[in-house]
Amino acid sequence: MNTHDLPTPALLIDVDALDHNLATMAAARPGAQLRPHVKAHKCTALAAAQAAVGHTAFTCATPREVLGMAAAGLGADLLLANETIDPRRLAAMAAAGDDARITVAVDSADTIDAAATAGIREVVIDVDIGLPRCGCAPDEAAHLADLARSRGLNVRGTMGYEGHLMALLDRHAQRLRVEAAIEVLLGAHEQVGGELVSSGGTGTYDIHPASIEVQAGSYVLMDTHYARLHLPFRQACVVLGTVIAAGPTHAVADVGLKALGMDHGNPSIDLADVSFCSDEHITFVPHVGVASVGERVEVIPAHIDPTMAMHAAAWLVRGTDVLDRWPIDLRGW
Amino acid sequence: MNTHDLPTPALLIDVDALDHNLATMAAARPGAQLRPHVKAHKCTALAAAQAAVGHTAFTCATPREVLGMAAAGLGADLLLANETIDPRRLAAMAAAGDDARITVAVDSADTIDAAATAGIREVVIDVDIGLPRCGCAPDEAAHLADLARSRGLNVRGTMGYEGHLMALLDRHAQRLRVEAAIEVLLGAHEQVGGELVSSGGTGTYDIHPASIEVQAGSYVLMDTHYARLHLPFRQACVVLGTVIAAGPTHAVADVGLKALGMDHGNPSIDLADVSFCSDEHITFVPHVGVASVGERVEVIPAHIDPTMAMHAAAWLVRGTDVLDRWPIDLRGW
Repeated sequence: MNTHDLPTPALLIDVDALDHNLATMAAARPGAQLRPHVKAHKCTALAAAQAAVGHTAFTCATPREVLGMAAAGLGADLLLANETIDPRRLAAMAAAGDDARITVAVDSADTIDAAATAGIREVVIDVDIGLPRCGCAPDEAAHLADLARSRGLNVRGTMGYEGHLMALLDRHAQRLRVEAAIEVLLGAHEQVGGELVSSGGTGTYDIHPASIEVQAGSYVLMDTHYARLHLPFRQACVVLGTVIAAGPTHAVADVGLKALGMDHGNPSIDLADVSFCSDEHITFVPHVGVASVGERVEVIPAHIDPTMAMHAAAWLVRGTDVLDRWPIDLRGW
Repeated sequence: MNTHDLPTPALLIDVDALDHNLATMAAARPGAQLRPHVKAHKCTALAAAQAAVGHTAFTCATPREVLGMAAAGLGADLLLANETIDPRRLAAMAAAGDDARITVAVDSADTIDAAATAGIREVVIDVDIGLPRCGCAPDEAAHLADLARSRGLNVRGTMGYEGHLMALLDRHAQRLRVEAAIEVLLGAHEQVGGELVSSGGTGTYDIHPASIEVQAGSYVLMDTHYARLHLPFRQACVVLGTVIAAGPTHAVADVGLKALGMDHGNPSIDLADVSFCSDEHITFVPHVGVASVGERVEVIPAHIDPTMAMHAAAWLVRGTDVLDRWPIDLRGW
């Protein structure tokens, strides 16, 4: 099959760019130095490709991602790097823990109680290292670890996510601030104990020492937001559209905001200015010439994670050859 | 079932607010004066409620919406108010046209050719009335109508969408500009002929004369973007979340940007300031007091259309009673 035959909008993954990204990250952070975050793609086929280059432990953001990864046979070591107190979802993960290793993040007495009550076996203590979101205060980590152990939970270590530092354009300033955040995390870890220290993401993957596993996800497909950091990863994912209207002032393709994560702003089109997105349209102005109805156009997402979550499947391509169809099978909660 | 038993994030539709919105619009634009746009909710159960109050003709944005509405027995008069040249989707709509009345928008020789070739029977001429998106120049409409008729297509009339005027806060200035846009549309219509003039939306529903059918969609559920216009419609839809972390500085609930349309900015929470959304989190600061882990929180979307498209189902509720589950069954393309 050829990409020209695909109905649009269609999510395309360029296999060569994907392989480049997989190899580049596996060289920088081999094996257990990376715990790929599946929230970036929500696709077990892509997770299997990450496992094939040596990363067999994964990070998840939702119970659905954990359960789907376990069901797909990718459950060697799954970390829910997020808090939940949902008793049914915790029980489902506890049950899946017979065939998979499932660890959940806790950051309070409530989340520890919910995990222990549901039969979860292993946790990490989530520590606030500067992002105002989840995570306990660093000086509470030891107490929470004791509490978790008193409830029969195995405390595997600590995690902390420096999301507020992920996309700083001044990489020198970023390094200094990330190193300070790591110091906070390692200080808490010393009190907590355990073998795991989990942190970081695509924007900071090269700052963390080898002793910390990095939870990067976006590196494997990339987006225009991370592209601003000039990382050694290639844009591997676009949303293919078809021009449905074209004139001297602008053109319109069928890739709208229901096919694109919009929280980081408008997507991009090479050699064109994007004017705005509507539900099912992107209006753009080519730098040179006039577009034609029927022409295909590649729209580059500003934020890859929510873009993936809007599509039922991605097409693996090389040039215009369609090699495979990968279901985005970890959507929902 | 009680809303406290629902897994979160959960899309809730308040049945009383919904009924208020249905009744208010049906009083203002009874029957055929409104052609409800299903892109706002993508839910055939909700469309059936719109049909029950007298609006039996519908507007769609995608072939998937058209085909799903026809399959649900709501195909009395479906308008694809959007251009497509996809031969398979056009053929599927032509085939569905044996049991449903399906009309598609055209705005160029290419779109007319694609529709005629696929066996589509009826079209409207889509006219540009100021929004730089699809639609032919007003002075091309007559020529395109002739071209469509020469290809055997029944030209039912004209449409034009004044999307650029939909959310003007100065309603007096809005009225003047919408009336000017309507004049352009009616001028084109005089040349085109046919019984239909289709236009407008939730922000302009009360400006159009009764002879124009209005394509409003958002009115039925509403969002914070349209709430700024002080329309007589109530907020009928929220995304219910659970607080998973809470402290003296902020709280976090499990309603992230994968559960919310973000193109109009952050959502809102009553009696709290929303700080930011992450993939699976909303960080917020209550105006008074401190939140508790486990507490439920209602997140009001900034843009309803893409929010609906992110959920597999909505729960119909009255207070905390769950009355029904409505699949969002028109997602995708």
